[in-house]
Amino acid sequence: MKIRITNARILTMEEPIGIIRGELHVTDNRITYVGEILKESELIQDGKPVEFDRVIDAEGNLLMPGFKNAHTHSAMTFLRSYAEDLPLKEWLYEKVFPMEAKLTPQDIYDLSILGIMEYLTSGITANFDMYMSPEFAAKASVDCGFRTVICGSANDFGGTKESLRREYETLNNYHDLITYILGFHAEYTTSKELMTDIADLAKELRTPVYLHNSETKEEVEGCIERYGMTPTVFLDSIGMFDYGGGGFHCVHMSSEDLDVCRKRNLYVVTNPGSNTKLASGIAPISEMLERKIPVAIGTDGPASNNCLDMFREMFLVTGLQKLQNMDAQAVSAKEVLKMATVNGALAMGLTECDTLSVGKYADLIMIDLCQPNMQPMNNIEKNLVFSGSKQNVKMTMVNGKILYEDGRFYIGREPKEVYRKANEIIARMTGETREQ
Amino acid sequence: MKIRITNARILTMEEPIGIIRGELHVTDNRITYVGEILKESELIQDGKPVEFDRVIDAEGNLLMPGFKNAHTHSAMTFLRSYAEDLPLKEWLYEKVFPMEAKLTPQDIYDLSILGIMEYLTSGITANFDMYMSPEFAAKASVDCGFRTVICGSANDFGGTKESLRREYETLNNYHDLITYILGFHAEYTTSKELMTDIADLAKELRTPVYLHNSETKEEVEGCIERYGMTPTVFLDSIGMFDYGGGGFHCVHMSSEDLDVCRKRNLYVVTNPGSNTKLASGIAPISEMLERKIPVAIGTDGPASNNCLDMFREMFLVTGLQKLQNMDAQAVSAKEVLKMATVNGALAMGLTECDTLSVGKYADLIMIDLCQPNMQPMNNIEKNLVFSGSKQNVKMTMVNGKILYEDGRFYIGREPKEVYRKANEIIARMTGETREQ
Repeated sequence: MKIRITNARILTMEEPIGIIRGELHVTDNRITYVGEILKESELIQDGKPVEFDRVIDAEGNLLMPGFKNAHTHSAMTFLRSYAEDLPLKEWLYEKVFPMEAKLTPQDIYDLSILGIMEYLTSGITANFDMYMSPEFAAKASVDCGFRTVICGSANDFGGTKESLRREYETLNNYHDLITYILGFHAEYTTSKELMTDIADLAKELRTPVYLHNSETKEEVEGCIERYGMTPTVFLDSIGMFDYGGGGFHCVHMSSEDLDVCRKRNLYVVTNPGSNTKLASGIAPISEMLERKIPVAIGTDGPASNNCLDMFREMFLVTGLQKLQNMDAQAVSAKEVLKMATVNGALAMGLTECDTLSVGKYADLIMIDLCQPNMQPMNNIEKNLVFSGSKQNVKMTMVNGKILYEDGRFYIGREPKEVYRKANEIIARMTGETREQ
Repeated sequence: MKIRITNARILTMEEPIGIIRGELHVTDNRITYVGEILKESELIQDGKPVEFDRVIDAEGNLLMPGFKNAHTHSAMTFLRSYAEDLPLKEWLYEKVFPMEAKLTPQDIYDLSILGIMEYLTSGITANFDMYMSPEFAAKASVDCGFRTVICGSANDFGGTKESLRREYETLNNYHDLITYILGFHAEYTTSKELMTDIADLAKELRTPVYLHNSETKEEVEGCIERYGMTPTVFLDSIGMFDYGGGGFHCVHMSSEDLDVCRKRNLYVVTNPGSNTKLASGIAPISEMLERKIPVAIGTDGPASNNCLDMFREMFLVTGLQKLQNMDAQAVSAKEVLKMATVNGALAMGLTECDTLSVGKYADLIMIDLCQPNMQPMNNIEKNLVFSGSKQNVKMTMVNGKILYEDGRFYIGREPKEVYRKANEIIARMTGETREQ
């Protein structure tokens, strides 16, 4: 399969970040050309004109790397707008955990597909997913053609060193679209014994570890009571980050915590939508950037956010810093775009999905600039971050295949069928009806 | 013209707020039926079957009143992503005012149309617009079929009691789609003499007055230095609010200021996107609601926001309160929906555009619920506020006419032509090129 996308603006996200006019070729699942528009006479291979299976005229619209959703729980779609207006701890223990106990693996498969559809509408081409029954989330992604990095989710309710090792081996050899990174839920839900086991496994496998870290003030205070240290410092003390990794949320981070991040090359995955909705606080992103700590962006799960929209997250990343620091210059649009694409990919170990460059995987999106919110074209990068919306996502391609284009999904199933199943699942659990 | 929209969910926004299944009829520019789905035998008038010019099957999608953008400067589209990352005062005096001095009335007409197009994509059916040459903004609205309430914008750079009176008389008798409300830019840009004149005019005409009020801390401090009082208290002391009115922004409000709001029945129009981007602060919305002060929502102009998106504003209204108050329960989805529809209409004097009720103007929108971000349907109101986006706006109708449907504009001109003009205007001003 050979696709030519011509007459495009291209934001490759290679440094220095800027936009070129040109065209891009995809051969099977890789980018095989990015550059100036070619004349017919230049489209020759082995003495013959190159034949394309499809030629797309971008009409001046923008190609860029797909967004990487670097922290989410996709299957939590079933709880969207169900348990609301509660702080994290009550929300989690009283509303989320009891409902999650009723989920079947098939439910997780069906609900993950609903999440993937929403990612596609937001130009997200890969997710870093943490949830139960990860092999079913992985299967959902493969069946849709979507790219997923599964994050281990061990905690006191389930998961051992051995089960994590099995997942690591199985899911890293499952399919080209799936990889697996070691992880556990959080310090406050995991015994010291299990955390020590996980740290040992990480050292044995020489691999990074991710977890929910310092999401709420209460969580940090609890850890200090338990271990006399903040979560970041405590985890580092047991060797959890000897081979890197990172934290989701990282809202309440001390100066010492940030020193650990820098020393261990940890990624911070910020989740401003969720931290806003659950009133958890604002992460010190500006300070992290000053300290050269790489920041990526995640939506968190749809139960706490409640949407899977990278445009909202991008605005919030910079907007909340401006408010917090009382500084309208905090966190530039280019920095935000880098977080949402390159840094996300690198945090997830997707080193071949970070930029639009020859040889990289064709995980890319087309942004519709012919919309009022993108006009006039004073600065396309700023337009993307400060006024972009899902409505601007014209096409989402993962691994060389178009999965979403002009509002239609190409994921091998009917949207209405996916919605019907999601409504049935929550209806079954609550005993309430859900008319579609 | 008679339109039947059947098989719909309907959020009329009448109290108590809730959703019904049914149908809605529009005859010319008014709503003539809202209620249960009618059988063919019930669709009889004067002994004959009612003939409709168009029957729309909503397929279970949601009809609701259009959003009211209760504070904006539409023609500022030309400065979107132009002057960025600056605090309000520098942004205004060094970047905005010098560029605005170069605008022609024709520019204001063309740039207002770009703003109107963006409103339509966001389900906004009326705007409360404050800008120079308001007769050209009014003409732009009329030519597109859009509804606009012009707000007077007198200040020390232009505008007198007499010019305001003329505008009041002219624009209140200009066209069914246009009304005019007395207003001035702000205390800090207007002499005491002119403010006293405006207060006198308001008393003479027995009419409300609106202005930018207490947007920044600095502005409030300046007013206290000048008059020994906060802007709200000072303006009340000269009788500005004897017949009501309200303030845009109202970020830095004292308890005494809120007492004045309550006493004078003032509307607060909150602009969280702009206040975030310019690092102005978070308005005390929860406290206003506790004190029963009516709150409406505006996007502010596209130069400071940078987009005209009521979905972003709705999320921010509740989200920022949750963060500010460290309370995940702050400001419910229903309260936010009321602000964005009913309260906006009432703040703007559009008492016939607030709800979907028989006899009211047909200013309404259809929300596409068959999108992943609206599923499952645990709670449609919460889905709208917490996960809705422009992508969900399937149709926008103003005064009985569909101006936007399935991504297409019906405003009597080609979108590309509007974009071309906007790029030409900013290119002419800056001497830079703008390729479209």
